[in-house]
Amino acid sequence: MSLVKLYDTTLRDGTQAEDISFLVEDKIRIAHKLDETGIAYIEGGWPGSNPKDVAFFKDIKKEKLSQAKIAAFGSTRRAKITPDKDQNIRTLVQSEADAVTIFGKSWDFQVHEALRIPLEENLELIYDSLEYLKARMPEVFYDAEHFFDGYKANPEYAIKTLKAAEQAGADCIILCDTNGGTMPFEIASIVAEVKKAVSTQLGIHTHNDSECAVANSIVAVQSGIVQVQGTINGFGERCGNANLCSIIPALKVKMKMECVSDQQMRQLRDLSRYVYELANLAPNKHQAYVGNSAFAHKGGVHVSAIQRHPETYEHMRPELVGNTTRVLVSDLSGRANILAKATEFNINLDSKDPVTLEILEDIKAMENRGYQFEGAEASFELLMKRALGTHRKFFSVIGFRVIDEKRHEDDQPISEATIKVKVGGKIEHTAAEGAGPVNALDNALRKALEKFYPKLRDVKLHDYKVRVLPAGQGTASSIRVLIESGDKEGRWGTVGVSSNVIEASYQALVDAIEFKLHKDEEAAAPKP
Amino acid sequence: MSLVKLYDTTLRDGTQAEDISFLVEDKIRIAHKLDETGIAYIEGGWPGSNPKDVAFFKDIKKEKLSQAKIAAFGSTRRAKITPDKDQNIRTLVQSEADAVTIFGKSWDFQVHEALRIPLEENLELIYDSLEYLKARMPEVFYDAEHFFDGYKANPEYAIKTLKAAEQAGADCIILCDTNGGTMPFEIASIVAEVKKAVSTQLGIHTHNDSECAVANSIVAVQSGIVQVQGTINGFGERCGNANLCSIIPALKVKMKMECVSDQQMRQLRDLSRYVYELANLAPNKHQAYVGNSAFAHKGGVHVSAIQRHPETYEHMRPELVGNTTRVLVSDLSGRANILAKATEFNINLDSKDPVTLEILEDIKAMENRGYQFEGAEASFELLMKRALGTHRKFFSVIGFRVIDEKRHEDDQPISEATIKVKVGGKIEHTAAEGAGPVNALDNALRKALEKFYPKLRDVKLHDYKVRVLPAGQGTASSIRVLIESGDKEGRWGTVGVSSNVIEASYQALVDAIEFKLHKDEEAAAPKP
Repeated sequence: MSLVKLYDTTLRDGTQAEDISFLVEDKIRIAHKLDETGIAYIEGGWPGSNPKDVAFFKDIKKEKLSQAKIAAFGSTRRAKITPDKDQNIRTLVQSEADAVTIFGKSWDFQVHEALRIPLEENLELIYDSLEYLKARMPEVFYDAEHFFDGYKANPEYAIKTLKAAEQAGADCIILCDTNGGTMPFEIASIVAEVKKAVSTQLGIHTHNDSECAVANSIVAVQSGIVQVQGTINGFGERCGNANLCSIIPALKVKMKMECVSDQQMRQLRDLSRYVYELANLAPNKHQAYVGNSAFAHKGGVHVSAIQRHPETYEHMRPELVGNTTRVLVSDLSGRANILAKATEFNINLDSKDPVTLEILEDIKAMENRGYQFEGAEASFELLMKRALGTHRKFFSVIGFRVIDEKRHEDDQPISEATIKVKVGGKIEHTAAEGAGPVNALDNALRKALEKFYPKLRDVKLHDYKVRVLPAGQGTASSIRVLIESGDKEGRWGTVGVSSNVIEASYQALVDAIEFKLHKDEEAAAPKP
Repeated sequence: MSLVKLYDTTLRDGTQAEDISFLVEDKIRIAHKLDETGIAYIEGGWPGSNPKDVAFFKDIKKEKLSQAKIAAFGSTRRAKITPDKDQNIRTLVQSEADAVTIFGKSWDFQVHEALRIPLEENLELIYDSLEYLKARMPEVFYDAEHFFDGYKANPEYAIKTLKAAEQAGADCIILCDTNGGTMPFEIASIVAEVKKAVSTQLGIHTHNDSECAVANSIVAVQSGIVQVQGTINGFGERCGNANLCSIIPALKVKMKMECVSDQQMRQLRDLSRYVYELANLAPNKHQAYVGNSAFAHKGGVHVSAIQRHPETYEHMRPELVGNTTRVLVSDLSGRANILAKATEFNINLDSKDPVTLEILEDIKAMENRGYQFEGAEASFELLMKRALGTHRKFFSVIGFRVIDEKRHEDDQPISEATIKVKVGGKIEHTAAEGAGPVNALDNALRKALEKFYPKLRDVKLHDYKVRVLPAGQGTASSIRVLIESGDKEGRWGTVGVSSNVIEASYQALVDAIEFKLHKDEEAAAPKP
C-alpha cells in the first residue's frame, strides 16, 4: 500500500474562518487529538503574524506527542533584505518546530500586482528563503501559492518558481489552489506536467470555493501526490479548506492508501465533534462520513433494504469512521421505519400487526397537518404507546390562563400563568411568572406537577422553535412548535401543532413531561 | 456554447433530508422560484408514495410557469403485473406532469437482494414500464439507480439495463450514484464506456456521501453528459444531493456552458436563501458561491489587493451569482455595506457623514444582542431613518394585555388582546381575539390603528418565525422573532429581540406597521 502523509492546518488556515478562534489551550488540546488520530504534520500557526501563535510553539514543546510533527508557517523573505534580517523568517527558526512551511508566489500576475517586483527577483526570494531555512530546520516545505491559477496564466514561469524551490532543497513542494476556483478535470493534467519538470515530492492544498476541495485533493493523490493538506471539518477562510474528515476515508477505504491506522480512523467522528466543540460551533449534521445524518435513512424503500443488506444504500460501513446507521420517521416512511424505531424504543411490534399500519396512517395524517417527528422522537414514542395502549396518563390539565401585560411603551411585558391540574384524585391550582407566555405556562405546569413528581425538577427546556406553516391564510395558518428538553441522563424532543401557538407549545410541553415520567418509570421497573 | 439541462429535485429528493419537510404551499412557492431562475425540469414529488405529493401535482396545474417543465417521480412496475395494473405507474400518468422519471435497478446485487427476481425479469420491468409511460406522457426519463456501483460489479449487466431503457424509448438515461460513494476519477472512464454502448442522451444524479457530488457532476458534464440533476443548497438524504447552486456557476463561468441566463444566475443567492427560509434552516455561511462568507476577506494586504485586483483572491466576481465581496472586522468595510444598503433604499448617505458611523455602531450593538437584519430589511431601513432623523412616529402604544385561556383539556385556548394607542392627540382603546397571543395582539393593534390609517387593512402577516438564541441559559436566553408582512404591492421583513417572546413579537409588529405607513407616505409624496 502506498503511503500518503496528512498535513493538518486546522490550527492555522482553519482559524482564518470567519467565526473560528481558538485559545492557545484549545490549540494544544486539538494538537493532541490530531496526534492520536495519526495526522503526520500539524501546522500550529504563523508565528510571524501574532503573539498567540508564538505562544503555541513555546507551549507545544512541553507536550509529549506520540508521532505527529509540528510545523510552523510563514512567507518567503521580503524584497531587498537577506533572510537573516527578515523578522518573519527569524521567528520561524525561533519556533523550533519540527518542520517549516513557507509560501511564495507562482503566479506572474501576483508578483506584479501583490509583490510589485520583477519576476526574476521573486525567484530569488523563494530560493534564498528556502536555502536559509533548510540549513537550520529539520524539514522544509514550500507552498506554491496560487499555483494552478499561475500555471494556467503562465506555465513556464509557474514551473520556474517550483524549480527555484527544488534547487534550494525543499523537502516537499505543495501545489496550492489558493482561490479554490480550479475544476477537478484540470488537476490531473497540470499535476502530470509538473511531475515532468520537478522530481521533488509533491503535495496538494485546496480550498472549497467551488465545492470541489475534497475531490481535487483526491484527484491529485490519484495523480501521484504524496502530501495532502487540509483541516478538520473543512474549516477555513471563505468556503473552507479541503476536509480531512472526508479525505481520510476516501484514501483508506476507496483508494486503499495508507495514511492513518484503522483504529485511528474509527476516532474520526469523535475528532470531528471535538473540534466543533472547541470551536463552539454546531456540528454539520449532513457532513460526509462523520455527520449525524451521513447514514440516516428516511425513505421507506431504503430502510427495508438496508436492514437486509446495508451496502444497498450505504457506500461504506459507518463503524469504520465511528459513525452509526440511523432510521428516521416521516411521511416518506414505510412500515420498516416504524418497526426499526419500535425496536430502538424496546417496543415489540411486528409488520403483520395492524397497529403498525395504524401508526403509519396516523403519522401520514399528522404530517399533513404539519407535525414533524424528526427531532421530536419523544412525541413519536408516546404516539406509539398510545396506539399500543401502553401509554399511561400521569396527570390531566383542567385548565390554564396566561396573561401578558405591558403598561408603558418602554416596559417589558410581564407574563403570568395560572394552571389547574389533577393527579389521581388530587387537584393542584397554582401560578407562575415567566419570560413570555410559554415560559410562564411551562413554569406553572411544572410547579403544579412537581408536588406529585419531584423528579420533574431535573427537567430543563433547552430549545424552543416555532414555525408558522403556510397551510391556510394568515390567521388560519397553523403553527408548529418543537421543544428540546433534558435531564441529567439525556435530551428529548417533542412537537405540538395548532392554529394557536400557546396550544401548540402546550402540547409539546405536556409530551415532554409525559416522556420524562414514562422514562423514569421504565428505568425504575425491574429488568427481566 | 453547448447546452446543459438542469433538473431540480429539491421538492422530491431534497425532502428526503433529515429535518426538511415542505408543505404543498411551500413546494408551489419554490417551484415558481426555480422556474424564474431558469431550471428546465422541476421534479415535484413521488405521487405514488404519499398524499402530499399527489396534491402538489393537482395544485401546480393551476399555476402559470414561464418555462420550467414539471416532472413526476416513481419506480418501474412491480414484478408479476402489467404496468396498467401497477398503482404506482398509474398515479404517474394521473399526475398529468410534463415529464416522468422512473428509477430501476442496474446493479445485479440489488436485483437479487432488493427485488429478489431473476436478472432477465428486471430488464422486462424496465422495458415495460418505460414503453407504457412513453406512449402516455410527453417525456420519459430513466434513473439508472446505483449505476456506478452496478457497473463496477457487473458492467455487462449494468449496460444491458440501459439498453432496455433505450429500446423502450427513454428520452434521457440518468446515471445515478445513489449511495454517493463514487470517486471523481472513476466517473470519466465509466461514462466513456457507457457512451460507446448507448446513444440516448445521458444525465447524471450524484449524492454527496464522499463530499464529491458537485465534482462528480462536473466531471460527468466534461465527459459529455447533457442533463444534471441536483437540489438547491444540496439538500437531500444523508449528506445531500449535488448542489445546483455550485454546479450552475461552474458550468457557466468556468466551463462556458449554457444552462440559465446571466440574469437568472444573478438570482442564485436569493434562490438559495429563499429555499433555506422555507425549510426554516439557517443558511450555511460558508457555502460555495452563495454563502455570506464565500467572498469574505480579512483585513490588511488581502483587502488592498482585492480592491486593486479582485482576481488576486477571488476565483470569480461574486456579483455573477448575486453575492458581494465582504471585508471582515474593519469598520471601513462595515461603512461600505451601510452605504450600499442606503443606496438600495434611496437614502443618500456619504461615507464622511458621521451618521454612517453611528448607524454602524447601532448595528454592531444590536447584532451583539441577537438582532439580525437578513430578512428584516424593513427594520434596518427604519433604523437608518431613526439615525437620520427622517423617521416619523405615526403612533404610540400606551399599553396592552394579552390573555390566553383554556378551560377544558380538549378545548383550544382562547386568546384575547386589549390595547391602548395614541395617534396625534386621540386615544383608542380596543380589543381583539386571535389564534394565539401574538395574532391577537397583531389584530388588536391593527384594529386600533385602522381607524386612523385605513390602508393598514391591506397588511397581511405572511410568516412568523421564532428562534431561541443560545445566548444565556434556559429562560434567560433571548428570543428573536422575524415577521414577514405584505400588502398588494409587496412584502417586507421586520425583527424583534427580547427575553420575552411577546415583547420581541411586539417590536417586529410595530416595525412592520411603521414601515407600511412610511412606504405609503413616500409613495404618495410628489416625485421631484
